[in-house]
Amino acid sequence: MNYMILIFILGWILKIEGGLLLLPALVGLIYRETAGLYFLLTAALAFFLGTLMTIKKPKNRKVFAREGFAVVGLAWLVMSLIGAIPFTLCGDIPFYLDAVFETVSGFTTTGASILPEVESMNHCSLFWRSFTHWVGGMGIFVFMLAVVPLLGGSTFNLMKAESPGPVVGKFVPKIRDSAFILYAIYLAITVAECIFLTIFGMPFFEALCHTFGTVGTGGFSVKNAGYMGYSPALQNITTFFMIACGINFQFYFYLLGKKWNLAFSMSEVRAYLFIILASIAIITLNISGLYGSIGESIRHAAFQVGTIITTTGYATTDFDKWPAFSQTILVTLMMCGACAGSTGGGIKVSRIVLLIKTIRKEIATITHPRFIKRIQFDGVSVAHETVRNTNVFLAVYCALYVISLLLISIDNHDFTTNFTAVAATINNIGPGLSLVGPTRNFSFFSPFSKVILIFDMLAGRLELFPMLLLLTPKIWRRY
Amino acid sequence: MNYMILIFILGWILKIEGGLLLLPALVGLIYRETAGLYFLLTAALAFFLGTLMTIKKPKNRKVFAREGFAVVGLAWLVMSLIGAIPFTLCGDIPFYLDAVFETVSGFTTTGASILPEVESMNHCSLFWRSFTHWVGGMGIFVFMLAVVPLLGGSTFNLMKAESPGPVVGKFVPKIRDSAFILYAIYLAITVAECIFLTIFGMPFFEALCHTFGTVGTGGFSVKNAGYMGYSPALQNITTFFMIACGINFQFYFYLLGKKWNLAFSMSEVRAYLFIILASIAIITLNISGLYGSIGESIRHAAFQVGTIITTTGYATTDFDKWPAFSQTILVTLMMCGACAGSTGGGIKVSRIVLLIKTIRKEIATITHPRFIKRIQFDGVSVAHETVRNTNVFLAVYCALYVISLLLISIDNHDFTTNFTAVAATINNIGPGLSLVGPTRNFSFFSPFSKVILIFDMLAGRLELFPMLLLLTPKIWRRY
Repeated sequence: MNYMILIFILGWILKIEGGLLLLPALVGLIYRETAGLYFLLTAALAFFLGTLMTIKKPKNRKVFAREGFAVVGLAWLVMSLIGAIPFTLCGDIPFYLDAVFETVSGFTTTGASILPEVESMNHCSLFWRSFTHWVGGMGIFVFMLAVVPLLGGSTFNLMKAESPGPVVGKFVPKIRDSAFILYAIYLAITVAECIFLTIFGMPFFEALCHTFGTVGTGGFSVKNAGYMGYSPALQNITTFFMIACGINFQFYFYLLGKKWNLAFSMSEVRAYLFIILASIAIITLNISGLYGSIGESIRHAAFQVGTIITTTGYATTDFDKWPAFSQTILVTLMMCGACAGSTGGGIKVSRIVLLIKTIRKEIATITHPRFIKRIQFDGVSVAHETVRNTNVFLAVYCALYVISLLLISIDNHDFTTNFTAVAATINNIGPGLSLVGPTRNFSFFSPFSKVILIFDMLAGRLELFPMLLLLTPKIWRRY
Repeated sequence: MNYMILIFILGWILKIEGGLLLLPALVGLIYRETAGLYFLLTAALAFFLGTLMTIKKPKNRKVFAREGFAVVGLAWLVMSLIGAIPFTLCGDIPFYLDAVFETVSGFTTTGASILPEVESMNHCSLFWRSFTHWVGGMGIFVFMLAVVPLLGGSTFNLMKAESPGPVVGKFVPKIRDSAFILYAIYLAITVAECIFLTIFGMPFFEALCHTFGTVGTGGFSVKNAGYMGYSPALQNITTFFMIACGINFQFYFYLLGKKWNLAFSMSEVRAYLFIILASIAIITLNISGLYGSIGESIRHAAFQVGTIITTTGYATTDFDKWPAFSQTILVTLMMCGACAGSTGGGIKVSRIVLLIKTIRKEIATITHPRFIKRIQFDGVSVAHETVRNTNVFLAVYCALYVISLLLISIDNHDFTTNFTAVAATINNIGPGLSLVGPTRNFSFFSPFSKVILIFDMLAGRLELFPMLLLLTPKIWRRY
């Protein structure tokens, strides 16, 4: 492990976080809340630490895969530990572990909360809580690569470790330009949603926070009732933007370049939209008896499908009361997740498509032993390494799932609660079923279980390997 | 598809089943039950059909992988459809689909029952029900290969398709000899258990049927209370034999040849025994408050761990009332399953070990990109094909799991019931939790769900691919 580069990059992340923390401080100033001072204080702390760590530029600035994975895992952890401080200092979340849970849930765009109600919180806390979604959605390293020209080359491994999906989409040859384009598209979508929500009657502060929660596919709300209290129009706008942010951003890049053919022939995007439409249709039929009109059923079905497949986590209705079939569809969508290269979590549609192709290939091999075929994706042969990595991803995912399920079951809650609590955190969704259903929260878990779920949220957001590597003693050896 | 060989082998299977059906007919004669006549009738039918199908010897007697998988899948289905007939004819299970469910559950050694009580059944039905476990445990094709000298060479693909585990253990070069040795060991264990149970006070008929259920790791009982009504000694004997039958039979082959070193260094057997001991220890601690003494807790913990990991399915206590932690351990053991090359089901310990090694290798590859290492198992390099197949196995397993869960959730029972019903059938265990807990049964499911669970039982027993191939239109093409 090259500790110099590790410290140097961590330092930059802290400086950036220091800068980001000025925004809630500003919100505190606007609303004349003393809590804003604690955000300023934490910003100063982060900036001070960051400056100390970046004084000395490392000589060897190569970021190998091992440093890339380790620094990304570590940075997300440190960011959350620092970001949680003002919540506890200002008294909005008195217990620090709970504040860390909430912050990790924010940065990883999970949206699982330990708060029974949020409306009594300071505006600056609410802003920061939602803003972490926005930062975490596209990724702090992508942000760093876009704005800080620090490392010359060899930053690809950082992006690889943080980006969701089996393959990293570089839009353009230079990584910095790719990161910049990503954030530009992201910002445009953010502004668009915020305008739409405001036009259709949502107060600006609420619109801003909910936009962060939507485009980052996070799910934190500034209202106790969440989206249940908003008008159908606002709910439908949010449905649209949630689904839009679950699409691979490569799609928008093609649209920008007017490459319509390339955009609409992306098999992942097609599969994603097909899954969404099919799920909405089936659930609408299944829940039609519960609501007044077919239109209302479609609206709730579409919102819930959108919120779950993109792993956002808002809810317009208590789906814990839906029939088992619809609930099971939602649990399946939790695992499935959105597209690679989007802000959504889960296993990712492209991995599911790859796994299905692998299964079909295996069957073909049994029936025609001499049959040799490479798996294709969008007309391109998939590297053997990617196929293997996808298979191993599934194995790690299942292993982490089972171990987490075992450990949190020590708390002795019911199986559905435990199973969906792990599903909701590892896939960065937010609500589950039963005790962690959309009208409940995660506060009742023991501190030990909270630590497990915090790990799951981070592992889920960073696609398992960075967090797993942090637990591998071997990589910490100096060289 | 070579239809000639398909029909010829199916014919032989039917003739063998006809022979096996004479045994319950004999039981009917001993107990002077008219129901025995229906078994005789079905035996005659099976033998007649089988003879018709084997009159003409096929010219091309090569059994390729595709024929091997297809004929094994098909044979298990046909065997069950025929084997279910006498249950319905004699009135013990009036609804034919229920009888098929029960027979499939028998042959696949699942032990899931649709019967609310069994003591009113005819002895010949009870015998046949338990005897299907014995036949299915070691496999009908292994039996056929041992006793019928029919195909000359090229029968390896039959054994491969039916045998549990990622690699087929041929003890000796000749397949027929291997099959014969397997059945000899199996018979010896059967006789030993039956003697022990009888000595410790179980009536002979009950001892015989429970022995079939134990050594085949099935789980059908001839008593309504199952093992809950028997003495601690009888329960402990059964615990021992269940665990013994979950061990890879290669182990016993080594023991027979006095190769102690080879036997006790088998990493799968060691992992299997370690998992069992660890689970017993943890569960004993977790449930100690529920029982009178530590000895009683150990007895119940050991029996339940043995019954679940070997996928037998007997129960000495209602573990649906255990704490969530112990229940989750049991659900995990359901997935894990016993050793390859045993009579138990599930994913198999060797696959779990292989998957863990794959994960470790992947992590090593991230930290040392130029690091090339082949996965080893018991000192031997594992073929790349086996590793890939194991990964694909997990993918197919997860896919089938999710699809089954979705389809049976249409019945609108609770999530725990649905989740563990699929776990209990796909892993060939028997009982699950909640509505399918050890004191309940599967009769409440809709016919559609029963068909899904029947498919899962067969797919689980035959390790997924044979049943999947039956659904692949391509393989049915003539050539």
